[in-house]
Formats: sequence, structure tokens, C-alpha cells
Amino acid sequence: MLTDLLLKTRSYRRFDASVKIPQEILRDLVEATRYCPSAANKQPLKYRLVFEETETNKVFDCLKFAAYLQDWSGPTEGERPTAYIVVLGDETISKFSEVDAGIAMHTILLRASELGIGGCILASVQREKLREALALDERFHIGYVIALGKPAETCLIEPLGQDGDIKYYRDAEGVHHVPKRSLDNLLV
Amino acid sequence: MLTDLLLKTRSYRRFDASVKIPQEILRDLVEATRYCPSAANKQPLKYRLVFEETETNKVFDCLKFAAYLQDWSGPTEGERPTAYIVVLGDETISKFSEVDAGIAMHTILLRASELGIGGCILASVQREKLREALALDERFHIGYVIALGKPAETCLIEPLGQDGDIKYYRDAEGVHHVPKRSLDNLLV
Repeated sequence: MLTDLLLKTRSYRRFDASVKIPQEILRDLVEATRYCPSAANKQPLKYRLVFEETETNKVFDCLKFAAYLQDWSGPTEGERPTAYIVVLGDETISKFSEVDAGIAMHTILLRASELGIGGCILASVQREKLREALALDERFHIGYVIALGKPAETCLIEPLGQDGDIKYYRDAEGVHHVPKRSLDNLLV
Repeated sequence: MLTDLLLKTRSYRRFDASVKIPQEILRDLVEATRYCPSAANKQPLKYRLVFEETETNKVFDCLKFAAYLQDWSGPTEGERPTAYIVVLGDETISKFSEVDAGIAMHTILLRASELGIGGCILASVQREKLREALALDERFHIGYVIALGKPAETCLIEPLGQDGDIKYYRDAEGVHHVPKRSLDNLLV
């Protein structure tokens, strides 16, 4: 059932760095995006797969994780993602579509969950540094980076508190809590 | 398996207008979005459910369907969607997030598929007319409209032709064909 898959698909930021993700799995994840809707069916998104250690290190250096966690500067070496999918827009096809990107990235994460992989969409990306590191052609708009790996943390959805604060937080045991608005709060 | 659900989730534009969608089902669809990621977890999206005939008629008058089908001006009376979810951004929370909208709208459509419902994300919306028709507060950015109903057409994914044309088309039997790029074409 979709709900089970959605609940399993948390935004993970700490991974077991000893578990590598082979290229074939990354191709499988992108394959799932082919069955997704795209604005005016233009399909401008392209994907750069990153799975070799020399490259994953370079990508890691262009990222910032979890802005709300003030006491945490990002995954330690043993907790790093072991693969990335860089989501690009081919501007010779059309302007980058943020809606397409949302659809495709979530689909990638849902498919990853089904395969026991977790990840996180990252928008805090040093884009020009990344362009250079991966030699990405100028015709590609650099949209987002999806970090992937075998999750090594517990992430839980919580009801929003009385104060309405939506900031996620990590408790003393290292469990990551994510406050989500109630259904009635979402309906107009 | 997710792939089966993705394949089933086509963009439908013709429906069986005799099959109504109750409010409870629309609430269930929005519930699924609560388990989705949101940029900085802000969750600015809100949803207006439309299911009563007086209102569905008003919403229909604000929409344009299928720009590529020159010979078709939209669903006939017996083919119209029977419900809509209007996707709004509460600008008192944050600027409308197109990525959030993509994630949430596709999740709604996947959940709908699971319940035997089909739909289509519509961006061609007369937004100020819709705001008036549904008395939507000025604090809401009107993002998109998801049309929903019991599908009454067949939609098929096709490989892209030699000419690279991505325009969908309807054949003599009324089957809707949607050319999709190959996996290798999506990888950089």
C-alpha cells in the first residue's frame, strides 16, 4: 500500500558508509521517473549518477545538510551518503521545471525505499563548484542533489506542537523528529 | 510494487461523469501528502476540496485541457471530472513551493490510482476567476488544479519517435498516446 511506502520514505541524512550503491540501482531509480507526468510532457530533466568514491567525495564537499540542526555540521565520514543523483534541467529542451523536479525526486525516493535505500533531497548546493567537480555542461541547470545510502538513523513524524513550530529536531538518543501539520490544518 | 502503480497513474482527461467522488476520499488523498517531504519542512501547501456539482461546474469553467490536442476542446458534459483538489500556497507561511507542489500532487495522484481514481494536474487555470468562484482568501497563492474522476479513456506510454517529438496524441480509436524519453536519454 502506498501509505506504508510513504511512511517508510523519511528524509535520511545519516547512512552506513560501508554499504555502496551500484550504478544499476541508480539507473533503476531514474527509470521510475519515466512513468511520471511532466509539464506539457516536455521531460526536460536529466540525471547525473554519482557512485564512485572519488566522485562522491567531491559532491559531498558541495552540500550542506539539515539547516535546523545547529549542533550538527553534517554526516561524519562513516555516515556519509554513498551515492548521489544530481537532478539537472536541459535548458535546450525547456526552462527547468520545479514541479517536474518535485515529482521526479519524490518518485526516486519512493522507489529507493522499496529497495531498502534512503535519501534526502538537498537544495543547499554549491552549484558552480559542483558543475566544475562533475564537468557538467553549461546547458544544464543544476537543480537539486539527492543523497542516497543505507539509512543509519531513525526518523519519526510527529504532530505539530501548540507553538506551531515546524523545525525538525534530534533528541538525546539521536532520533530525528519531524513535526507535520494535521490534515484539518491543510484543508481550506 | 511502485512501478505498477506508476504505470497505472496516467494523466486522464476524460472521465465517467456519473461516478461521483465523495469528500472522504478527497480527504484521504490529501492525508497522503502529510507524509511527504517539504522544503525546510515548512509545509506551506493547503488544499481546497471541490466535489459538489454547483462547485465542480464553476471550477470546470476556469480550466483548459490538453493544449496539444488541437481538435479537442476539452471533456464533454458526460466526460467531465467529478471532483477537484485546488492546490494553494499559504503565503503567510512561505512563498509557494513548486517543488513541494510537484511532490504533493503526484502523491495525490498515486494514492488516487490505488483507489481506482484517475486525474490530471492542470496548470492552465484562470486563477483570478477561480479565486472568485471559490471565494479563496487573498493569502493563498493559487498553484494548480488536480482534476479527478473515474477514468473513461485509455492512455499509453510510447517510446519517443525518431523526430524526438514529445507531443501526446489521440489515435482514431480515441486512445491517448504519450511519448516518453528512454532511460539512456535521461542520463548525462
